[in-house]
Amino acid sequence: MKTDGASADLATWTARWRAEIDALLDRRLPGGDSDGDPGRLRESIRYSLLAPGKRLRPLLALAAAETVAGAADEPMRVACASVELVHCYSLIHDDLPAMDDDDFRRGRPSNHKAFSEATAILAGDALLTLAFEWIAEAGLRAGRPADFLRASLALAQGAGMGGMVRGQARDLGEAVPTTLGDLERLHDEKTAALFRAALEIGAAVAGADEAQRAALARFGQRYGVAFQHADDLDDADHVSFAGAARDRLHQHIADAVTALAPFGARADRLRAFAQALLQKVAAP
Amino acid sequence: MKTDGASADLATWTARWRAEIDALLDRRLPGGDSDGDPGRLRESIRYSLLAPGKRLRPLLALAAAETVAGAADEPMRVACASVELVHCYSLIHDDLPAMDDDDFRRGRPSNHKAFSEATAILAGDALLTLAFEWIAEAGLRAGRPADFLRASLALAQGAGMGGMVRGQARDLGEAVPTTLGDLERLHDEKTAALFRAALEIGAAVAGADEAQRAALARFGQRYGVAFQHADDLDDADHVSFAGAARDRLHQHIADAVTALAPFGARADRLRAFAQALLQKVAAP
Repeated sequence: MKTDGASADLATWTARWRAEIDALLDRRLPGGDSDGDPGRLRESIRYSLLAPGKRLRPLLALAAAETVAGAADEPMRVACASVELVHCYSLIHDDLPAMDDDDFRRGRPSNHKAFSEATAILAGDALLTLAFEWIAEAGLRAGRPADFLRASLALAQGAGMGGMVRGQARDLGEAVPTTLGDLERLHDEKTAALFRAALEIGAAVAGADEAQRAALARFGQRYGVAFQHADDLDDADHVSFAGAARDRLHQHIADAVTALAPFGARADRLRAFAQALLQKVAAP
Repeated sequence: MKTDGASADLATWTARWRAEIDALLDRRLPGGDSDGDPGRLRESIRYSLLAPGKRLRPLLALAAAETVAGAADEPMRVACASVELVHCYSLIHDDLPAMDDDDFRRGRPSNHKAFSEATAILAGDALLTLAFEWIAEAGLRAGRPADFLRASLALAQGAGMGGMVRGQARDLGEAVPTTLGDLERLHDEKTAALFRAALEIGAAVAGADEAQRAALARFGQRYGVAFQHADDLDDADHVSFAGAARDRLHQHIADAVTALAPFGARADRLRAFAQALLQKVAAP
């Protein structure tokens, strides 16, 4: 009963905030352009960014902010949404011919197929840059520059050559992982680093202290690796690790939940996210 | 005599700070990697970033910081250097086959020829991200988060879809400019927006007030358009505008210098930069 109630709560909360995030993205990146949208840049950004998506990373950022501060005001929500810009940029660049060469993304032509390679490269560059613009603008407007500068640092560290970009370089430059350890290092860089950044952004803009920030970062990192294991199981990727990955997934989720202990009931939303990931894997 | 003295001063100052910037870039992006440099990402970044360069944008940022604050401490210098990371990323992505398709850059193979297209895309992504990481790290360390968050905002605005990326999209997506007005709009976006950001970064981290920031931003924008006119004259690009461009260049430099009036003698370094650009064009 408790689990059913928590998952109903999570579904309601998620639907509400997903709609809010979608509206925020649309509002801050309106269609049309005062000057003809040179190179169809804005159109291509909206094409990818406003495609239906789970918005999981900004939702987790918001849940982290709520865990620390109870609620997220508008500048905090803008900072939380910025992680979706980075996620979207990474998908556009990953799909490029020189990278994973994917012609489709979620059943639609990928950005470079719908527009052009040049536009897709620039759209990704623009989205990455815009994420930092949003955080800075929101932080100055909120009058809490230190909190938002910490969020900016967390995003750069998670997205860059110590995190996501490093994982992408490893994936393209090295052989397929042959050990569970190598696989998890790749998951940690390619996927978990940005989840971790999402949680750290939420924590930072909510004014978390150092212990709170570290606990939420740990939740994000463990949740992120578990998420990638679940994704692999779903896609039947890395099947040679399927049994071990399922065990590791449970262990990571347990670790993630343990990290939330200091927050007590305030972290119930994040616990529900962790629970939902387990249920996704358990589902037939 | 005065001009000769100023240009000798500028040469000395430039040589000193260029060496300082080069050392800073090398120190903060050391070669080698604790974990094998997956995908040769770090090697490819160093290949492009540490190639000999004028370092004009960070030098102007430093000169702006000195104009406001007299001197730049180490965190301020890190923020000023970040604009070179963005300049370097833009060159790497611009050279890609889907963009300008340049196999050479300053006489050496461009990044994607020396490494691979995938590595070049990721190296650019990493450099752009790193610029914001450096500003945030330096600002938190310096304990001046508002000033550095303002620098981060200026960099994002200059580099992104309101500035440099927009200009690149226009250049790829639209016909060659047929009027001086169209040409200058392109110069403003593709080139001057990042120069303007460089000056704004220097101003912000030096704690400039709003009037000082606006004056230095104006200097940067005018200098940037003039710089691009000079570059075109040098390369014999846009030759149909050559006569008009020379006139406009002088006008922009005059405007740039006018913007410095409130600073008095403190802006002499920036005046010397403006003078040097005129001399470059006047030289046989």
